[in-house]
Amino acid sequence: MKVDLIIRHAHVMTMSGSGVGMIEDGAVAIKGNRIVQVGKTEEVMKGCQAEEIHESKGKLVMPGFIDAHIHSGLAILRGVAQDMGNWMEEGLWPFMKHVKDDDQRKGSMLNIMEGVKAGTTTFCDYDANMTTLVNNYVEIGARARLAEMINEIPKDIGDLPRGELYPFESTIGEKKLQNNIDLMKNWDGENNGKVTVLFGPHGPDMMSLELLKEVQHQAEKYDTKLHMHVCQGDREIHQMNMRYRKRSIPFLEENGFLNDRLLAVHLTEATKSETAVVAQSGASMINCSGSIGIIDGIVPPILEFLEAGGKAALGSDQAPGNNCNNLFNEMKFVSILNKVKTQNPATFPATKALRLATIESAKAVGLDHEVGSIEVGKKADIIFIDLESPSMSPVIRKPVRNIVPNLVYSANGSEVEHVMVDGKFIMKDREINTLNEKEKVREAQKAAESLSDRASADFQSHSPVIGMMQRGEL
Amino acid sequence: MKVDLIIRHAHVMTMSGSGVGMIEDGAVAIKGNRIVQVGKTEEVMKGCQAEEIHESKGKLVMPGFIDAHIHSGLAILRGVAQDMGNWMEEGLWPFMKHVKDDDQRKGSMLNIMEGVKAGTTTFCDYDANMTTLVNNYVEIGARARLAEMINEIPKDIGDLPRGELYPFESTIGEKKLQNNIDLMKNWDGENNGKVTVLFGPHGPDMMSLELLKEVQHQAEKYDTKLHMHVCQGDREIHQMNMRYRKRSIPFLEENGFLNDRLLAVHLTEATKSETAVVAQSGASMINCSGSIGIIDGIVPPILEFLEAGGKAALGSDQAPGNNCNNLFNEMKFVSILNKVKTQNPATFPATKALRLATIESAKAVGLDHEVGSIEVGKKADIIFIDLESPSMSPVIRKPVRNIVPNLVYSANGSEVEHVMVDGKFIMKDREINTLNEKEKVREAQKAAESLSDRASADFQSHSPVIGMMQRGEL
Repeated sequence: MKVDLIIRHAHVMTMSGSGVGMIEDGAVAIKGNRIVQVGKTEEVMKGCQAEEIHESKGKLVMPGFIDAHIHSGLAILRGVAQDMGNWMEEGLWPFMKHVKDDDQRKGSMLNIMEGVKAGTTTFCDYDANMTTLVNNYVEIGARARLAEMINEIPKDIGDLPRGELYPFESTIGEKKLQNNIDLMKNWDGENNGKVTVLFGPHGPDMMSLELLKEVQHQAEKYDTKLHMHVCQGDREIHQMNMRYRKRSIPFLEENGFLNDRLLAVHLTEATKSETAVVAQSGASMINCSGSIGIIDGIVPPILEFLEAGGKAALGSDQAPGNNCNNLFNEMKFVSILNKVKTQNPATFPATKALRLATIESAKAVGLDHEVGSIEVGKKADIIFIDLESPSMSPVIRKPVRNIVPNLVYSANGSEVEHVMVDGKFIMKDREINTLNEKEKVREAQKAAESLSDRASADFQSHSPVIGMMQRGEL
Repeated sequence: MKVDLIIRHAHVMTMSGSGVGMIEDGAVAIKGNRIVQVGKTEEVMKGCQAEEIHESKGKLVMPGFIDAHIHSGLAILRGVAQDMGNWMEEGLWPFMKHVKDDDQRKGSMLNIMEGVKAGTTTFCDYDANMTTLVNNYVEIGARARLAEMINEIPKDIGDLPRGELYPFESTIGEKKLQNNIDLMKNWDGENNGKVTVLFGPHGPDMMSLELLKEVQHQAEKYDTKLHMHVCQGDREIHQMNMRYRKRSIPFLEENGFLNDRLLAVHLTEATKSETAVVAQSGASMINCSGSIGIIDGIVPPILEFLEAGGKAALGSDQAPGNNCNNLFNEMKFVSILNKVKTQNPATFPATKALRLATIESAKAVGLDHEVGSIEVGKKADIIFIDLESPSMSPVIRKPVRNIVPNLVYSANGSEVEHVMVDGKFIMKDREINTLNEKEKVREAQKAAESLSDRASADFQSHSPVIGMMQRGEL
């Protein structure tokens, strides 16, 4: 068979089967944007004649990571809110109210570049103004599974006194739903299929049941999924109790939302039995260890969800309150936080975390027919890890192989050398080759400085971060 | 004043005072190996004429990190043992028994390179064969505060049935103490003062009281400190109860070991009152979040220790069971693990973690007269962080500054651009310039392969990692 490219003499970690599918001295043949053969180098060289050979001795070749939940539009506010209670109202809102669409767009690119440099090839971005942000994904060349965040909340919601019922304005909801429909019509399947679209209700507390049902109807019409925060915090549960006298999960169950169309993000406040109900319904759980650890001081119920047989994935959430968007961080945290939660070092072995960032994530977000593993017929979304980085060295192969634990517990993302999406290298030798990184950083910096001027002019917050600043701690 | 070098137009984070001592548009003047002026760029330029100017706009300039507890000699076994109980006996020992002195030396260099590349400038290394390992520090040019690990345990201790009292052999103890004394005589103050020496009893359970007292006597004679594991696990407590019918801390208190000469490492199993006793004695606590999280599934009592007024520092411990040796990892974990331990996102703000990796660490290990902050008279151990890395962008300066939280929660170490130790750059633009990195990695790899052959030949372990290997999970 004539192929475009053979990657050979690598440790190929396919993530197929129930483990990690490691092939030593392995090779991958690529034709166009698809993987056409995978196996031992010797076999693949027999089966294929390649235009180009990529010698990969000393490299780990594996599927790119799938970040199942990210709000890239918040990256412009990286680091303004953490180490506090009342994160939304006191930390984020005093800045967020001044964020313009263009700030979101420029900040978003920082997040995407950060992710790509740490091996993320698919971003499940869930934010406002997605018809603008999608252009960043097209420009950099990453795969994107996008949802417009739909709610019926007026823009000044952060100024509401804590504990009051949110007002809903149906014109806001209609407009946001329309944005999501436009995103679907204009972008689903575009950019060689790299862009796909979901629907993105903000949460069961953030919109009327009527609108929520309409969003679901649209998701059914386009046969796609719902990306939604569920049980994301005590604020949500309080709102649901006030409005419906029901907690989120019984409410969603009664109204027919619990099924495999749903990506339920966080489940921070879900009880053990609620967690099991969601898992058994076929809905997926997206677990964000870094952000929920920093914002809430909580370890979400991912263990219970997996024990109940659910499909799950990892997400990096937002930069103001994680503060990084790097799947290596999420793999390490989901494992170690659950070890300490159960006081058992055998809990959540590295392999499990790695699967939740690749093949299981693909299943959870509904992309496993295309990506998540290195298998014949799948799209070539492939990353190359330098096993000669000090942090990945030495490589031991027997009697046990140490690559997986070192990838999860030792690597930090900078070991990712090349990134290929859809058969094309978008990063080589750690340089993103589809855009000018420094220029993008400077654009975002300029936008952040102007935003910071605007926010400072009317700044009102009781955030403890203000005290830290006054005491010279920042 | 004539100086050798001025670093200017940087964000200079001095870590002096009670906060982080940030100076915007700051400068540092260096003469020989010492800092001679620090302040606003304008002031420093008025006060000094420099041979060389280092333009540092867009950089954070800060003191190098002090890793207060590392066993670099174990780096050759990175990733062979984790995700299991019985870590020492089942995970580590079947490999460790085959490690030769030369394997330790070659592996150690991987750890040191990894640390330097993540901004560590001082390593408190605590291992066997330190008179060999010290040469790695001299070669790379890092600062080292070294202790020979002293015990009276025969080399095959890992083969002992769990629960049996360790046999002691005084000839072993005498030899190891002599190694530590030799290290002191030959190396303390050497390499322009970059090498200093402590004494390193392995733990109160690992040697007779007689030998422990002799080690303390030597530490007093040379007026230095004791670097020692204390309450490092249930095995230690079990040994202490069997041998003395006392737990470690009451035992050490009665015998006069609790004072400011002691660096008490881990305190994993210390009760709240025991923790307070150690803190109030003037002894320091070294907290290793990554390793204790992975090996034991426990968050050590650092909060209680600090509340009781103790001096504390962070350490990265060993590569087989952390698995990285990177202070960015330790800062992030100490903060987030303690947030979830207390279910409070305000617990352990970023600033506190940052201090424990720099100035507080210097105080804890007794080097604060030399390093840990950027202040006039101190040694120039300085790192440069690229604030234009996507993960550190954007930089917001008002109404709150976001550099510290992004350094602790977002950075992973790869943002460190240059590393200076003792006034000399040992890394520039991420390349260590005192040695050939690739060559060192390959040397260690070769040693690891031979070690892996030896270990495979007589491998006996019930380690769950074996099962993972058989199931294709590694």
